[in-house]
Amino acid sequence: MSQIRVQKHTARYWTATFDNGPINLMNPATVYELDQLLTSLETDPEVRVIVFDSANPDFFIAHWDVTTPGAVVAGMKTESGTRRGMHPHADVQTRLGRLPVVTIAAIRGRARGAGSEFALACDIRFASRERAVFGQFEVGVGAVAGGGSTAHLPRLLGRGRAFEALLGGDDFPAELAERYGWINRALPDAELDTFVDAFARRIAGYEKEVIVEIKELVNRATLPPDEEFLAALKAFFASTTRPGPGRARLQALLESGLQQDGEVERHLGAHVALISAEKEG
Amino acid sequence: MSQIRVQKHTARYWTATFDNGPINLMNPATVYELDQLLTSLETDPEVRVIVFDSANPDFFIAHWDVTTPGAVVAGMKTESGTRRGMHPHADVQTRLGRLPVVTIAAIRGRARGAGSEFALACDIRFASRERAVFGQFEVGVGAVAGGGSTAHLPRLLGRGRAFEALLGGDDFPAELAERYGWINRALPDAELDTFVDAFARRIAGYEKEVIVEIKELVNRATLPPDEEFLAALKAFFASTTRPGPGRARLQALLESGLQQDGEVERHLGAHVALISAEKEG
Amino acid sequence: MSQIRVQKHTARYWTATFDNGPINLMNPATVYELDQLLTSLETDPEVRVIVFDSANPDFFIAHWDVTTPGAVVAGMKTESGTRRGMHPHADVQTRLGRLPVVTIAAIRGRARGAGSEFALACDIRFASRERAVFGQFEVGVGAVAGGGSTAHLPRLLGRGRAFEALLGGDDFPAELAERYGWINRALPDAELDTFVDAFARRIAGYEKEVIVEIKELVNRATLPPDEEFLAALKAFFASTTRPGPGRARLQALLESGLQQDGEVERHLGAHVALISAEKEG
Repeated sequence: MSQIRVQKHTARYWTATFDNGPINLMNPATVYELDQLLTSLETDPEVRVIVFDSANPDFFIAHWDVTTPGAVVAGMKTESGTRRGMHPHADVQTRLGRLPVVTIAAIRGRARGAGSEFALACDIRFASRERAVFGQFEVGVGAVAGGGSTAHLPRLLGRGRAFEALLGGDDFPAELAERYGWINRALPDAELDTFVDAFARRIAGYEKEVIVEIKELVNRATLPPDEEFLAALKAFFASTTRPGPGRARLQALLESGLQQDGEVERHLGAHVALISAEKEG
Repeated sequence: MSQIRVQKHTARYWTATFDNGPINLMNPATVYELDQLLTSLETDPEVRVIVFDSANPDFFIAHWDVTTPGAVVAGMKTESGTRRGMHPHADVQTRLGRLPVVTIAAIRGRARGAGSEFALACDIRFASRERAVFGQFEVGVGAVAGGGSTAHLPRLLGRGRAFEALLGGDDFPAELAERYGWINRALPDAELDTFVDAFARRIAGYEKEVIVEIKELVNRATLPPDEEFLAALKAFFASTTRPGPGRARLQALLESGLQQDGEVERHLGAHVALISAEKEG
Repeated sequence: MSQIRVQKHTARYWTATFDNGPINLMNPATVYELDQLLTSLETDPEVRVIVFDSANPDFFIAHWDVTTPGAVVAGMKTESGTRRGMHPHADVQTRLGRLPVVTIAAIRGRARGAGSEFALACDIRFASRERAVFGQFEVGVGAVAGGGSTAHLPRLLGRGRAFEALLGGDDFPAELAERYGWINRALPDAELDTFVDAFARRIAGYEKEVIVEIKELVNRATLPPDEEFLAALKAFFASTTRPGPGRARLQALLESGLQQDGEVERHLGAHVALISAEKEG
């Protein structure tokens, strides 16, 4: 795998580190590597817990690479077909919660769009209080978030706060994200790694069968139905193939530095507002 | 409309201001005006976002006018029949979440009973930290809250805190309401208007189709079923037509100044306790 | 009853105090006494509210007595059969939310395992900020929590935080428990009793019918289905009858002082980690 580095601390405790260019964009190749990794996690008899982190302290996963042509995204295929018979991105997102392994996102830097959605599909989210930022900016470029945030955020944040996040498209710093329930906890940056490591190691000591049984019971109460993921993906494709001013705003953001490490990506929520807000009235 | 002033900042961004007497009581006429306004919001091709606020900084909407005869409430009818075939109040409450428009309650002052329920039926709630107060005091006068709080509060606050609010009947100042999830955020009073205006203007810049699609996806996960609204309304009518000490407590509150701007309305949670609590034991 | 002391402040307002040995362990006899008490609450025409507290300020209910043989737990039977036709523990746990009476847990000290689950099955939870501690440590000894926490915690805390609690098995001090929604509020220890007493007395003044109707409406939205309790109990029995290292860890904890008042019971979350965490890697 070229974008995700897997380290096996022990047979039971793994870490997967996203490392893809200057801002950790997600693209079809990321999804194919995740598909492979999830297959390992589904079949390995020993692994109990995996931590997902980032090689870049400023970007956990910036977002989906918006320059990937829509037809390429729509036509994505893994070599062996997908495990659950869905589009590979929905497949990966809906397999995460069902893994016989505990998934922990340890978030430093920005996690927006598909990056936030990847974190939301993990079981547990710990984040750096100083460095983590969350956002579903898609609405700002005329798109519906298609990777599961419309299923997870309403359940984690409640109806009102999910609407604020998904309809506003602004940035949520770690402390606010914690208050809203987007993440489990915001921890001081200097303590994040130690805390997550200790948490993962205690889980690594437990029985795999018990972990599986607990996950099944919690899934009964909280796993969003597949249909919600599929409906969101459909709405994403509909919105991104529709001409309209959102496409023009996306173009303007790209010209101002979207997808590069710099001012626009660091404060994307504010830049979305600058190009979207009505001035008159 | 005589109780609700609508201002169109732009074709896309409207404000509706409640202005009905000294404490903004809600009565059948308020519901009829809301019915009209919602019809405009359902049919206007341009509007993206509407902010609901109050002309009175001490009262957002005090509560339902308890002096309206029960038979009048039960027999309420809009001129053209209701959109969803329900009692006009349930009709308005259940249409709010389905509007092709983002509804934001900007709450200053008291929002109790039907006033709290109106805010709960909006998509997003921002409130003044210093001035907003929430409460479902109905239990204190022997009534079941009938306008949807029994559906929205359990989902927003969780089971335990919803029971505390609905069975206790006490006041929840903005800071506690924020902590419990009753509102999105409590903001400093001096910043509330600027914050809400900026939030509304960024949404006004987005595509209407995308707003509609996002609302539909979030509604799949969180919109309470109609049956819960209808069951609550039925329980409200049953409880308010039943003789009992609750009716006497309501009478005592009216004699002490309920429905006027003064001590009782300003601290209704405490006054409910004074007339209800068992002293012996 | 020998473990639960019931005090009737008035006909409408009762308190039940757990008082069973040095750390308030729960055992089959506790369940039989609860079964009796719930029958009284289900049939008494006057009682509106009951507060559950503990005679021991350091232990609300420590947890289930792990030395009770599994066959005894599996074979538990109340004299008259159970009300809802379930295993007596599931029966008690699922009857709590359906009582025609408001149940309030006033928590001082540790509430872990079945003790936390008892509190979760009550309608409302207030806790001592300085003294209350919550935890589902079962995973640490190779067991699935079987008394309803897998149904209640996901709904109260959300998916991510429920996974953290149930898969981590660590202690949650009152302040964190409040932030996560495990309890309604953490109150200063010196104010807890006064606050709870005032809250109970205001409810005692209300009509029983209205209390019942409100509980029914909130139950529609939030009462977990029976199947989740039964699936958890089944998983508990499966996990505790399976040989494995969890049984050895339980033995080691017993030898270090589990079930006695002392270091292990006071900081059980940390001791679970000490005996479970992988050291290598």
